[in-house]
Amino acid sequence: MSDSHELKIDACFSPYLYPVYKDNDSIVVIIDILRATSAICTAFEHGAEKIIPVATVDEARSYKEKGYMVGAERDGVQVDGFEFGNSPFSYMGEKVKDQTIVITTTNGTQAIEAAKNAYRVVIGSFLNITALCEWLISEKRNILLLCSGWKNKFNLEDALFAGAVSEMIAQMSDAYKCGDACLALKYLYQMAEQDPNKFLKHSSHRERLARLNLKKDIKYCLTHDQTRVIPVLHDGALIRLKALQTA
Amino acid sequence: MSDSHELKIDACFSPYLYPVYKDNDSIVVIIDILRATSAICTAFEHGAEKIIPVATVDEARSYKEKGYMVGAERDGVQVDGFEFGNSPFSYMGEKVKDQTIVITTTNGTQAIEAAKNAYRVVIGSFLNITALCEWLISEKRNILLLCSGWKNKFNLEDALFAGAVSEMIAQMSDAYKCGDACLALKYLYQMAEQDPNKFLKHSSHRERLARLNLKKDIKYCLTHDQTRVIPVLHDGALIRLKALQTA
Repeated sequence: MSDSHELKIDACFSPYLYPVYKDNDSIVVIIDILRATSAICTAFEHGAEKIIPVATVDEARSYKEKGYMVGAERDGVQVDGFEFGNSPFSYMGEKVKDQTIVITTTNGTQAIEAAKNAYRVVIGSFLNITALCEWLISEKRNILLLCSGWKNKFNLEDALFAGAVSEMIAQMSDAYKCGDACLALKYLYQMAEQDPNKFLKHSSHRERLARLNLKKDIKYCLTHDQTRVIPVLHDGALIRLKALQTA
Repeated sequence: MSDSHELKIDACFSPYLYPVYKDNDSIVVIIDILRATSAICTAFEHGAEKIIPVATVDEARSYKEKGYMVGAERDGVQVDGFEFGNSPFSYMGEKVKDQTIVITTTNGTQAIEAAKNAYRVVIGSFLNITALCEWLISEKRNILLLCSGWKNKFNLEDALFAGAVSEMIAQMSDAYKCGDACLALKYLYQMAEQDPNKFLKHSSHRERLARLNLKKDIKYCLTHDQTRVIPVLHDGALIRLKALQTA
């Protein structure tokens, strides 16, 4: 295979940096492991029909006034006056089944907003990693892994997941050439693979969440393959990829 | 030592992302290993008195018309009509002694431009790493490692150097708390330390330079401690830190 026919996979460490990486052809995978994209995957696994990501708390509040179920998180904490924050455990059970849920989070929804005009925007987390990688490969397109980070700074857990995807895709297919960021992250993931929780011990956001007593959340968000759902952005809302394909 | 008294060290992977990381207190280390910051350290080691970094080829040309020695590189190649590109080997020997040299490069000079209003801006490369780390620690200030990257994207060799600095500083002092980017890079450097040249084998810019037959440059740019000079930005030009201190 010549260089020109190779597919590319790369990673972008901040929504702020997205303009440097964006193109019209790539599938963009939104990553916010602790905890927005993990919560979104969980909600779909538990039967949610649609999730509307909004960038501001004000937008979220106006949806709430219209009667929607609304989750709002800032700085790791549920915003006063909302039903949920972004803990995956809030998005489980009968209450989410067949619902349209509105969410706004510190980082994840900002990344979705940044990438909304990409060819295709999907949601990634350890919870759906294998289904995600299999689908990405089947699409035969360039891939951009967009880490939400923390307030536009690099964060370790999103980078770790981007590394896990880079590594899994390399195991499944030799069609992709890694950009420098993915090369670095693959090495990182290889080091962390045995015990990602320990690896993240000194990460800023893990420390932040540990202070908030969210160790159970962290452990769950690092668990592989709890769902085969791939949430995809369509007309400003997230739906199941299967719903899009059969629409 | 309480959290509030800890010094911070973090890394920023692109000049484009600098606004997210900047503050008024940090020392910013500019990193462009292949090859601008390696060339700058080399020029000072060989007796250059001053280096004026300029962002555009046009500015460089106007300096040349005024009779300055001028180096200009774009996309890894010396720009037509200039004496030098950014090979460190061009900045050796009698011709640079006591000279004021003007340079413009694809990435490194853009990073200097981005950070020019920081508390202090210094130039880092493997060539001056030990002197640099010793001085950084002596300053007792927050440190931001600013990777020039490649056209505002992450690159592996700059990240590797930022990891080497993070690791060396951690070995020398326990006063610093690593941000997430430095945590990731320390791991990366620990993996690469035994054979950085092999580690960089698949990096995009190394491949670019290898195509340009610059393996000798790459090897030199990965060599530790060829100089004790620390270039520092002062009034828009780089001078030796010692010259600043005795001014």
